[in-house]
Amino acid sequence: MKLLEERILKDGKMRDGGILKVDTFLNHQMDIKFLNEIGKEFKRLFSDQQITKILTIEASGIAIASIASQYFDYVPVVFAKKTKSKNLDGELLTSQVRSYTKGIVTDIQVEKKFLKPEDKILIIDDFLARGQALMGLIDIVNQAGATVVGCGIVIEKGFQDGGKMLRDKGIRVESLAIVDSIGEGSISFIEQ
Amino acid sequence: MKLLEERILKDGKMRDGGILKVDTFLNHQMDIKFLNEIGKEFKRLFSDQQITKILTIEASGIAIASIASQYFDYVPVVFAKKTKSKNLDGELLTSQVRSYTKGIVTDIQVEKKFLKPEDKILIIDDFLARGQALMGLIDIVNQAGATVVGCGIVIEKGFQDGGKMLRDKGIRVESLAIVDSIGEGSISFIEQ
Repeated sequence: MKLLEERILKDGKMRDGGILKVDTFLNHQMDIKFLNEIGKEFKRLFSDQQITKILTIEASGIAIASIASQYFDYVPVVFAKKTKSKNLDGELLTSQVRSYTKGIVTDIQVEKKFLKPEDKILIIDDFLARGQALMGLIDIVNQAGATVVGCGIVIEKGFQDGGKMLRDKGIRVESLAIVDSIGEGSISFIEQ
Repeated sequence: MKLLEERILKDGKMRDGGILKVDTFLNHQMDIKFLNEIGKEFKRLFSDQQITKILTIEASGIAIASIASQYFDYVPVVFAKKTKSKNLDGELLTSQVRSYTKGIVTDIQVEKKFLKPEDKILIIDDFLARGQALMGLIDIVNQAGATVVGCGIVIEKGFQDGGKMLRDKGIRVESLAIVDSIGEGSISFIEQ
């Protein structure tokens, strides 16, 4: 997605060690008009699919998934929670996710009632690097007996192994930008 | 907001101890078409104000704030983070928030660069009970030297003291539904 690559070049912060910060428009401060363009693009890519629900994970996936839903006939959006609160008191589907950014393993959970065997789920998230969050979400969809139609990712770090691992498992992954390499102040993308 | 009260009566789960679960449409699974109605109503209530940015807190405020932004000329949405990640490396504004639901005190943080002294901030959140999250967000806006235009709340628990505390401080609080009392399977609202 040209518009996204241009925005990353303009507003992203690139650092040695494969670090890309897009917090001015994607995952801390959010440009909602731009997220609408992202939502439209996900719809274009998955227009051949019938989707009944969008699944994401807190926190940075929520805005992207919610705006995208508007282009998928307003299907419900469910987000997996990373903390257990008193409000989660139904039967839970849980999985474990290792975050390399935060250096911890987190239990993620979704109330079972929100995912039905007949559901066709589009998983949406901001980043795909090692694929741990997506694997956790796919695990939860599988536990529910529902179908993963595919994963819609805003930015994939093509130099990490998550995308290959998921595609090797037969999961459809559509990433709007795939980063080839990141250096201090520089970034290159894989032509799609 | 009549539509909201009706939706709470239809889909909310009320329990003794003042507990109201609205996880089927507001804060775990989200009805995006309905969130658009909420966004429109916030716009109607704050149409007399010039707003340059919406501030919320992860996780359940994000979808509401993002959809609402579309009715405020797509102003940027910023969410306060509850966990410190390696991605938060700029100068931070922080405050402490006690969560009675989760039984913990959390540091919340916003990168300073996202809130400027000239910003006129609308704070949006799903619930107002004791007002701790809102107080933390207001504290952060004050640290930035920006202006809090008001707080847009979906559901206020009128039987708890947060709303009174904030209004006594001169903060404009607009709640789309104010709950008077909650019992096992029953709920009543304060007429607005």
